[in-house]
Amino acid sequence: MAKIVEFIPNFSEGRRQDLIEALAAEAKGVAGVTLLDYSSDASHNRSVFTLIGGPEGIEKAAFNLCKLASEKIDMRKHRGAHPRVGASDVFPFVPLKETTMEECVELSRRAAKHIWEELHIPIFLYEYSAAGPERANLAAVRKGEFEGMPEKLLQDGWAPDYGERKIHPTAGVTVIGARPPLIAFNINLNTGDLSIAKAVAKTIRGSSGGYQYCKAIGVMLKERNLAQVSINMVNFEGTPLYRVFEAVRAEARRWGVTIAGSELIGLTPAKALADTAEYYLQMENFDYRKHVLENHLA
Amino acid sequence: MAKIVEFIPNFSEGRRQDLIEALAAEAKGVAGVTLLDYSSDASHNRSVFTLIGGPEGIEKAAFNLCKLASEKIDMRKHRGAHPRVGASDVFPFVPLKETTMEECVELSRRAAKHIWEELHIPIFLYEYSAAGPERANLAAVRKGEFEGMPEKLLQDGWAPDYGERKIHPTAGVTVIGARPPLIAFNINLNTGDLSIAKAVAKTIRGSSGGYQYCKAIGVMLKERNLAQVSINMVNFEGTPLYRVFEAVRAEARRWGVTIAGSELIGLTPAKALADTAEYYLQMENFDYRKHVLENHLA
Repeated sequence: MAKIVEFIPNFSEGRRQDLIEALAAEAKGVAGVTLLDYSSDASHNRSVFTLIGGPEGIEKAAFNLCKLASEKIDMRKHRGAHPRVGASDVFPFVPLKETTMEECVELSRRAAKHIWEELHIPIFLYEYSAAGPERANLAAVRKGEFEGMPEKLLQDGWAPDYGERKIHPTAGVTVIGARPPLIAFNINLNTGDLSIAKAVAKTIRGSSGGYQYCKAIGVMLKERNLAQVSINMVNFEGTPLYRVFEAVRAEARRWGVTIAGSELIGLTPAKALADTAEYYLQMENFDYRKHVLENHLA
Repeated sequence: MAKIVEFIPNFSEGRRQDLIEALAAEAKGVAGVTLLDYSSDASHNRSVFTLIGGPEGIEKAAFNLCKLASEKIDMRKHRGAHPRVGASDVFPFVPLKETTMEECVELSRRAAKHIWEELHIPIFLYEYSAAGPERANLAAVRKGEFEGMPEKLLQDGWAPDYGERKIHPTAGVTVIGARPPLIAFNINLNTGDLSIAKAVAKTIRGSSGGYQYCKAIGVMLKERNLAQVSINMVNFEGTPLYRVFEAVRAEARRWGVTIAGSELIGLTPAKALADTAEYYLQMENFDYRKHVLENHLA
């Protein structure tokens, strides 16, 4: 069986279609790697790509994409609703098959070193690759955003893991690391009031008393005039999708706001969707391993 | 890749645990076959087994199980809520992997011939194996049930496909055929009034003006005092699970009745559950092939 790693680079460009297509072409051009999906959001001014492949191909794709993004994106001119610190904002590596988390940590370190040495972009390692718990959390690393990074890098405890205490002038810094699979799940509210999405996000995220395995922020989808609760489900067995969806529905009701829709970005394990169906269909004695056909065909 | 056929025999015994276990042991004893699941219902007085395996093993399992059931079940004494015509009531064969429907039709014919010749149980072929459209539908073949079969076999057009126009005295007749995968989906209503389940079933089934790919009857779960809408979803892409579930919810409301729960019998394709999640989570731009992780790991 082949080793398979998932790589989900987030770039600070969600408007220039030509550049987004150039990044996609770059990803497709690496042997042993498959570009599964990419989606862009103009309000966020951000694109998320999903690649899978063997560790060697993924490492090469990470460097090539970072290089192209650093040449084409000028963070000094970047505006967007989503927090970000660099042209290549976050590079997560996820062990999917026949690969350990430790191998993905090693892969993230090699990619970080290569990017610093060749492209002179300082790197923070996060999640399982982090040097300590205070920099494991993406929100903590990203705090201050691109504009605050020059000062943050000089603060105690915020030297980058690779590189100098000085941002790349146009590409900023990049956050790289190994992490378990997560589900990127956005819920759009029928309101143009961003403060409602922010208030709802606060009630559901673990860090402010909500569901333990849920991270959430409020952002604005300007082109649709909808406020969005942008969620990372870091453990869908611990905190299932439907529970967060119903919590968002209930909290938004406080302002007379309904849910306009939701979206999944990148890949979602089939079991997370089956668990959702189990809840809504009020299924008795459902057993995912036993009742789902595909589990018996592998 | 190996050929895999699914075989879902339905037996007219849901109460005698020793016989149910004996049937399970018989299924497990056939080389090249895996017994995935079996479930029994005392009210229905019926058990459904799910086996997968290569065509040869499945053919052998079908004969062995039919033989054991014919030796141990006396239909003259059988009472139960679910329609039935024989000890081995229905034997469907489903092509799952590397197998065509035509191969399953051939398999069903071989099994039918063998059962008639050795066990003297007359066989009706149904679904894709049927000799004509008038006997393709299980409900049409089963009409009259065990008690009406002696007379039905003598009627014009109701000679069995294999065997004489005379039932096996204790085992009745057996319906055998190849069919596409279906989802056996039961919805329990919070009422002890069977007439409500029957009325709801009538509104949702295609044959009486409901959803085209939905078959449904009302049955009673005596031990829980709940009326059940017992459903076969014969094409879950054409008529999705959630649509039928919501239709049952809406129709039952007519009598002030709510849904107590639902259950899946046997195997369900992952996509049917993902489609359900897509609906309830109001997902925008969801693409099962693209967004579900497992589709990229095969």
